[in-house]
Amino acid sequence: MPELRRDPIVGRWVIIATERARRPAEPHPPAPPATPGRLCPFCPGHEDKTPHEVYASGRPGDAPDAPGWRVRVVPNRFPALRIEGEDGRQADGIYDRMNGIGAHEVIIETPEHGRQLADLADAELTDVLAAMKARVLDLAKDARFRYVVLFKNHGRTAGASVEHSHSQLIALPVVPRQVQEEIEGARRHHDLKERCIFCDIVAQERKERVRLVHENEAFVAFAPYAPRSPFETWIAPRAHASRFEEEPRERLALCAQALGTTLRRLRAALGSPDYNFMIHSNPLRDPPSPSYHWHVEIMPALTQVAGFEWGSGFHINPVPPEEAAEFLRKVPG
Amino acid sequence: MPELRRDPIVGRWVIIATERARRPAEPHPPAPPATPGRLCPFCPGHEDKTPHEVYASGRPGDAPDAPGWRVRVVPNRFPALRIEGEDGRQADGIYDRMNGIGAHEVIIETPEHGRQLADLADAELTDVLAAMKARVLDLAKDARFRYVVLFKNHGRTAGASVEHSHSQLIALPVVPRQVQEEIEGARRHHDLKERCIFCDIVAQERKERVRLVHENEAFVAFAPYAPRSPFETWIAPRAHASRFEEEPRERLALCAQALGTTLRRLRAALGSPDYNFMIHSNPLRDPPSPSYHWHVEIMPALTQVAGFEWGSGFHINPVPPEEAAEFLRKVPG
Repeated sequence: MPELRRDPIVGRWVIIATERARRPAEPHPPAPPATPGRLCPFCPGHEDKTPHEVYASGRPGDAPDAPGWRVRVVPNRFPALRIEGEDGRQADGIYDRMNGIGAHEVIIETPEHGRQLADLADAELTDVLAAMKARVLDLAKDARFRYVVLFKNHGRTAGASVEHSHSQLIALPVVPRQVQEEIEGARRHHDLKERCIFCDIVAQERKERVRLVHENEAFVAFAPYAPRSPFETWIAPRAHASRFEEEPRERLALCAQALGTTLRRLRAALGSPDYNFMIHSNPLRDPPSPSYHWHVEIMPALTQVAGFEWGSGFHINPVPPEEAAEFLRKVPG
Repeated sequence: MPELRRDPIVGRWVIIATERARRPAEPHPPAPPATPGRLCPFCPGHEDKTPHEVYASGRPGDAPDAPGWRVRVVPNRFPALRIEGEDGRQADGIYDRMNGIGAHEVIIETPEHGRQLADLADAELTDVLAAMKARVLDLAKDARFRYVVLFKNHGRTAGASVEHSHSQLIALPVVPRQVQEEIEGARRHHDLKERCIFCDIVAQERKERVRLVHENEAFVAFAPYAPRSPFETWIAPRAHASRFEEEPRERLALCAQALGTTLRRLRAALGSPDYNFMIHSNPLRDPPSPSYHWHVEIMPALTQVAGFEWGSGFHINPVPPEEAAEFLRKVPG
């Protein structure tokens, strides 16, 4: 059983997941890509190579785990957490631990092995976001879970171990520290000013436009003022909204348009970089928040995180966000 | 001029350092090592290839920037921060920025190109720690600085761009967020219990011994209860002490003994892994703290930090610290 352990000084939770070590090794340098259609467990026709699906869209007929889907969600074969069991919170001397319960799922974004997320049409990308939303709403029914982390590792240096385009989710019995810190920072700002800090950011970015990458009727993509790494880009709804999974489909379509455009611009500007993104949203059990504002953080894997960053939480970024945004505005999206 | 910018939500400071981009490229995969004695700027006889030294020990005679030294400290040729100027704190709409003032120095740990930190005798390693201490005490005289980050990147995957064994320091006009969070967490514990959380940790680790890696009269090396990555190891003074730079030489010698032993055990256990370490100490201008306890955090670069970790601050570690410590206790140190 995996275990969740809490650092007693700063309160950071860590998953001790011994089963993950049994994953197929990730060699350095990268192995050649799996032959599409032959060895890839995410390709249509290979549905028996994954655990039973928990979601599929686009498939004609009722048979699960069969070809014909457009987006398919399956449990991770090497999960960091286990779905069964109680949380088992307990003390361990001065320390805190609990059972490593949670869900770890893979969102297979397209049936076509060779296509990346940036290649998908807006309608296809909307289907991917709709699959994420459906999974969050389903997992929210489980009272043990307090947060669902939605994220994507694209490319080997960003941590992807399977080439076929996919993203992941991890449902947790605790709120991740980084999200908690954002929530607390946003609450402090709201206590002081009775405004959402993200709404303030969106307003300043739309007014100044120097860090703007793209906008449409409902979403804005911009380089944050203090980016941790070159070409870090955030996408946020223009109007206040605390929860990703409450967005109606027509707004998910606009989010998909902004996300697809941003990913294509990053690809055009940087020559197909590896990247990570994560969706930050209000915790599952909390009421809608006037101070927290959901958003996507996209981080191209261009610089190495070294000892200084690791040990200090202080980042050195050689590219000013104004230059990154200007560059991204000039390339096709 | 580099710039310090503050994230308005969580308060994280970031260095925007455009000059760093002009560093010699760090190719992937790694380039062959520089030929010792021919091209290496850190080898004796090449003192003119670095900026003028700010510290040297062991050299007979008074001439600076000449061979004969045992440890030498020079300003970084591609500094993330600049030593001249005022802090220039100002608002930028809702954002905060200041001039990127600070010091960025390189501690050349040995004159011998082929030797690693783990190869040094305890007395040589003590000289390295004494050089770090001397630099912190000197930089502390500059009232603009509030913190000195002491860290090492060993090996390319850990971020080192020069092979010749060295560590670095960055003096900052702000306290790094990760240290600030530790200080605040330790203060909360002290407010509640009137004890230092690190002293409590040292006591539990010395009693249980399952996560213990090494100890001597004054220092203990152990795997932390909630490690972010496999084989993460901390070294802490057994008795309460808030500041690294106040340690007398006889205690630095015992710290060197614990550090050298730990690095040799990590090397024997893991086959010469790349690693980072950082010294966490009380901020320069603060009074001695009853709640904060200085320590070294060593992080072998074994797992990739991917989107999930980046975006959530939540780490997945496949190796329980009890297994890592047991393994490290069994190998020669």
